Amino acid sequence: MCRKWTFCSFLDFLSAMFSEGDSCKMAVDTPVISGSWFSEVSSVCPGQSFSIQIKEILHHQHSGFQDVLVFDSKNYGRVLVLDGMIQVTERDEFAYQEMLTHLPMFSHPHPAKVLIIGGGDGGILREVLKHPSVESVVQCEIDKDVVEVSKKFLPSLASSFSDPKLTLHIGDGLEFMQKCKGVFDIVITDSSDPVGPAESLFGVTYYESLFQALRPGGIVASQGESPWLHLELIKSMLTSCRKIFPVVDYAFSTVPSYPSGQIGYVLCSKDVATDFRIPLRTLEEADLDKWGLRYYDTEVHKAAFVLPRFASTALLP
Amino acid sequence: MCRKWTFCSFLDFLSAMFSEGDSCKMAVDTPVISGSWFSEVSSVCPGQSFSIQIKEILHHQHSGFQDVLVFDSKNYGRVLVLDGMIQVTERDEFAYQEMLTHLPMFSHPHPAKVLIIGGGDGGILREVLKHPSVESVVQCEIDKDVVEVSKKFLPSLASSFSDPKLTLHIGDGLEFMQKCKGVFDIVITDSSDPVGPAESLFGVTYYESLFQALRPGGIVASQGESPWLHLELIKSMLTSCRKIFPVVDYAFSTVPSYPSGQIGYVLCSKDVATDFRIPLRTLEEADLDKWGLRYYDTEVHKAAFVLPRFASTALLP
Repeated sequence: MCRKWTFCSFLDFLSAMFSEGDSCKMAVDTPVISGSWFSEVSSVCPGQSFSIQIKEILHHQHSGFQDVLVFDSKNYGRVLVLDGMIQVTERDEFAYQEMLTHLPMFSHPHPAKVLIIGGGDGGILREVLKHPSVESVVQCEIDKDVVEVSKKFLPSLASSFSDPKLTLHIGDGLEFMQKCKGVFDIVITDSSDPVGPAESLFGVTYYESLFQALRPGGIVASQGESPWLHLELIKSMLTSCRKIFPVVDYAFSTVPSYPSGQIGYVLCSKDVATDFRIPLRTLEEADLDKWGLRYYDTEVHKAAFVLPRFASTALLP
Repeated sequence: MCRKWTFCSFLDFLSAMFSEGDSCKMAVDTPVISGSWFSEVSSVCPGQSFSIQIKEILHHQHSGFQDVLVFDSKNYGRVLVLDGMIQVTERDEFAYQEMLTHLPMFSHPHPAKVLIIGGGDGGILREVLKHPSVESVVQCEIDKDVVEVSKKFLPSLASSFSDPKLTLHIGDGLEFMQKCKGVFDIVITDSSDPVGPAESLFGVTYYESLFQALRPGGIVASQGESPWLHLELIKSMLTSCRKIFPVVDYAFSTVPSYPSGQIGYVLCSKDVATDFRIPLRTLEEADLDKWGLRYYDTEVHKAAFVLPRFASTALLP
């Protein structure tokens, strides 16, 4: 099932990647593997690279949309890589999945109908289904191979794909969204970076479609890059969102295997009364245990909106 | 002034480093440089590595205590590396310096006499001297070459070494501390990791000496590793501290160039009434600007104590 991956020297690859200044926008579509190490190299974070030691490569293919790699690592558990970028590691995936899901879900009074765009590994779905108010979930993922690969190799994330509340569509997120009008309480966009198949999920058109797809009082949450690396991109995303939604906010969490060790979350509400910083429901310790939460709790929710001063002064209105 | 550094292939080095499982405790005393890339490789965080692209190597020597490397990077400004581990990059050093300094300083009613152990780059001293209550600062750094190198190559950190409030001692931190009884309001330990010259700064004996060195109401703050990587070490540090100090707490901040992208801070007070989570003084926006603060503000102070659930359940009493 695995095709042969491209072995290349770390040095050769990095030299080619950034040979002429930082303006290079070469697309990375083969993972950089040197000996027993995988290195993440991307034009979206030039001049730096994070490497994880491989124990065993389990799967590698080109899906038609992107390069898909799964390996067991020495210290980060199983790792899913798309187009050379780490998407999840078993060691820290819960931070991202819990925060991208529970920040919007606990900010909505009664989230019943949920749409997930992307999220092919199943981690967001797993978290959404923990909320007893949820009646149905629609998920639209562009790449069916990511779903299949995750079911096979990442069952701790993908086991919820068999849940009867789920309707799974394989297709383009923006196209799907444009057909939905006033349907959802929550839309979560769990996308890769704005290079490659997820590019359309970062523009104004996408956010306008999100607004239309929501019921009154609806909320959207999207992956929002890292303030340490992409402050201007985030600023521009938030400016676009503020033209469409009456309430827009930005939070972040730590995720060691993502570039700079953190990732942000863009949150927008149709309801002018939404305050994302004050969750509407609180889980007691026993419930936090029952839900298996390892990153999120009510205090973490509130603190996630407190950005380092360089970021808060740049991003908050 | 530079001696020749060891060129070695990234792959060769990594393979040697972690060849037989993860139990290897080989000391890294030469930086790993491959072509134009520096890679941080350490037995304290096995199975992962962070790399920064070099623009120009400015300085390299063995000081007698440790390997000292300074280079200009493509995207992280100037970088100081000791024994192969990144200590500061101009891009993100402010996060660490501001938090390790201002968390204890704003938790003390009137910090007048301050001791800094380590901190040879001068960044903590720079932040301490921003507090108008400070009358005198004593700093004890084991490696005079780090001070000299920082003065020459990192003036934005080291310019405060000429401040008349400072008395600089070159010597062992633990030995120096053991001679001080009831002298300081604040002691800040700005050390490298517990491998190499900083090893003695992580033990019970060191914390007992810290307690003795403080005036009544005194506070100590120390570098406290990353909850994502060193939860057991941190737990053990906090357990030791709680046997000595009546108030012990733990905070963290993001610092992209440190392993896992974050670092923690251990805070202890002699005063049972200290609440580290509520700063005693607040800086208004104009003061934050005047002080040149880019990470710290009052809200950041409070939020720094809110740990991800996996860490709070493990570390809080």
